[in-house]
Amino acid sequence: MDLEVGDTVKVVRKNSVYEGVLMPTTTKNTVIKLDNGYNVGFDTGKIQIELLKKANASKSKKETPRGQKQNLPLVSILSTGGTIASRVDYRTGAVTSQFTAEDILNAIPELSEIARYNSSAIYTILSENMHPDNWIKLAQAVHEEIKNGAEGIIITHGTDTMAYTAAALSFMIQTPVPIVLVGSQRSADRPSSDNAMNAICASAVATSDIAEVCVVMHATTSDDFCHIHRGVKVRKMHTSRRDAFKSVNTLPIGRVNYKDRSITTFTTYKKRGESELSLKASLDPEVALIKYTAGASPEIIDLYINAGYRGIVIEGTGLGHVSSTWIPTIKRATGNGVPVVITSQCLNGRVCDRVYDTGRDMLKAGVIEGEDMLPEVALVKLMWTLGQTQDYEKICKIMIENLAGEITPCTTTSFQA
Amino acid sequence: MDLEVGDTVKVVRKNSVYEGVLMPTTTKNTVIKLDNGYNVGFDTGKIQIELLKKANASKSKKETPRGQKQNLPLVSILSTGGTIASRVDYRTGAVTSQFTAEDILNAIPELSEIARYNSSAIYTILSENMHPDNWIKLAQAVHEEIKNGAEGIIITHGTDTMAYTAAALSFMIQTPVPIVLVGSQRSADRPSSDNAMNAICASAVATSDIAEVCVVMHATTSDDFCHIHRGVKVRKMHTSRRDAFKSVNTLPIGRVNYKDRSITTFTTYKKRGESELSLKASLDPEVALIKYTAGASPEIIDLYINAGYRGIVIEGTGLGHVSSTWIPTIKRATGNGVPVVITSQCLNGRVCDRVYDTGRDMLKAGVIEGEDMLPEVALVKLMWTLGQTQDYEKICKIMIENLAGEITPCTTTSFQA
Repeated sequence: MDLEVGDTVKVVRKNSVYEGVLMPTTTKNTVIKLDNGYNVGFDTGKIQIELLKKANASKSKKETPRGQKQNLPLVSILSTGGTIASRVDYRTGAVTSQFTAEDILNAIPELSEIARYNSSAIYTILSENMHPDNWIKLAQAVHEEIKNGAEGIIITHGTDTMAYTAAALSFMIQTPVPIVLVGSQRSADRPSSDNAMNAICASAVATSDIAEVCVVMHATTSDDFCHIHRGVKVRKMHTSRRDAFKSVNTLPIGRVNYKDRSITTFTTYKKRGESELSLKASLDPEVALIKYTAGASPEIIDLYINAGYRGIVIEGTGLGHVSSTWIPTIKRATGNGVPVVITSQCLNGRVCDRVYDTGRDMLKAGVIEGEDMLPEVALVKLMWTLGQTQDYEKICKIMIENLAGEITPCTTTSFQA
Repeated sequence: MDLEVGDTVKVVRKNSVYEGVLMPTTTKNTVIKLDNGYNVGFDTGKIQIELLKKANASKSKKETPRGQKQNLPLVSILSTGGTIASRVDYRTGAVTSQFTAEDILNAIPELSEIARYNSSAIYTILSENMHPDNWIKLAQAVHEEIKNGAEGIIITHGTDTMAYTAAALSFMIQTPVPIVLVGSQRSADRPSSDNAMNAICASAVATSDIAEVCVVMHATTSDDFCHIHRGVKVRKMHTSRRDAFKSVNTLPIGRVNYKDRSITTFTTYKKRGESELSLKASLDPEVALIKYTAGASPEIIDLYINAGYRGIVIEGTGLGHVSSTWIPTIKRATGNGVPVVITSQCLNGRVCDRVYDTGRDMLKAGVIEGEDMLPEVALVKLMWTLGQTQDYEKICKIMIENLAGEITPCTTTSFQA
């Protein structure tokens, strides 16, 4: 039998029957992708295999024309690439970014029940290749769309660095309308793809009253609802699950029910029209995130400073610690006007350097406490802050100020000691 | 009234009454520590304050003599410092390590119902100051105790880098008896201290059938049970909560009920006597953990290599990615015999570089996939591996081999794509 990658096949092994799409493999095994999205491998000698449908037969793509209803709000879709705009290349088995925002609209007709759309492709890159320069151009494009009348923004984005981009936009743009980042963990042509549900929920948020930069992604392993995460409080917490994105140190802003697109909110948020549109799109990318590990040498700080880095965020241990051997190097850095911000590799909880000796010495050496900021968010914020001012005192002040919800204010009960 | 830090006081503000211990503060506010362990701050001008008990009155310390029951198993307690062996210095408000293992036994009389104990203080340091050299000496001490007849080992350890030490011991020692790391998140003299429950549960595990290196810590916010985490699969996931330690990418080995000290297991484990005692305590500490962040420059790899680092673990994004601009630098490093291991900053899930273009290019550049290893565990394992062999092929082979439970084997369903 002449089977090709991409063919739909039936595999019989012992008493079990499997149906799926034949996948490429570098071994002599037979690999098929099941309807639930899982790949299963078989010893080719021990199975019977039967063709159900040729690959070509399923390749005809419906191009549903899209009716724009004039009474619906206007949303701009800006695509940057990533899995939500990708499909598997069955020749290589790899996922590549091939879709534009226009393609997404054609592929998900339900979107046109929620809004009218403008769409433009800003980039077509996998998100691990995003650079602070890309954030600036994206912020400028978002600003332009809102200035031109968009009542909501959807940014399709790869999931790997989506949280970094969300944080960057949060600091760069004051927005009177929702700015929603959305992606998918499984490509559009996979049965388990989360792209349609995520895009529909994102559209519901883009037309809502939540005028913040947020990330809208699957909340559970079922297709029931998405969470609306604040752009400065969210993190990709799983390599492959559809519910990979989690709010850290806060509740999500709310959730969107997939079925009826209703939104329930869990926290306060900025309302539509509450902020004036403004853009502060300068960044200094020469900021390093250094993760302290047990026994790491203090010379690491010097490596970065000698290479010209102008700001440092340390991901310390526990409440925000490093080895006491690091203190003199940190003191020298801050003395030379290089801000050093301390966060925690625990991710959850708040740094507090008043409790243990090491922390108190760090405060004396001039570190800026990152409070309950995620390390990645502190990094992006320091890049942005250095883009706004060179004044060391002002930098320190901005870093401990809550600008976009990145720092949860301390209550009187300051620290659960 | 002549109040001192450490005095027990009653504070009346409006219609609310608070009782607690007067804490030091650098502001003009009044801060007291409540019975539940929380600190509360008050505007001194707006409260009435009354002395309940002088600090000195509560300072008499009972030195309960400890009866060693000869029919109980022999456990060695090795103390290294940290909060479990610390108390608050009320003059400064800081926590310092002041207790020895002997002090712990005196303070927690229930321990003597579970085992007989030898105790020795290996170090008295806060765990952020632990260095690979300390792991080696600790492993040697553990090995010596077991050789001399200890039927279980308890290591009291600061929580900040406890997981690093647990991983190091897991690779360095093959053990026929339990090796239990335990710590506490709140110092012994605080009402909310977790040190007694954690120590008692640790002792139950040290006398159990679970002959692995494990971490025993509070599982919930209540004083109900502790989890038994495998030493290579555990991470401190909160800066201050008592249930900060979590098993990642696996279930805990089991749990210990505080009340009756009964153990329930959730996974398979090595049983008492199953492994021969052996020690391979060589490490190469010149290994760096580099966290990739969006837009980070590939020159970072060169900074470390030029500084003489002999191994690199990258904490990439998503399934194990970095910017494609990093690929040539990685290729040069591996070409020069510097192993580069890729893990994920998502922490949860498995890296898989066969799915996207970037990952496939990384494999071609020679990266070693860290599978579902935690980044910190991959770091410690690479230090240990470089301590065992200089042969590049052998290093690669060891890194992808499951030695101590650090890699969960792939099932046929290899990747939830």
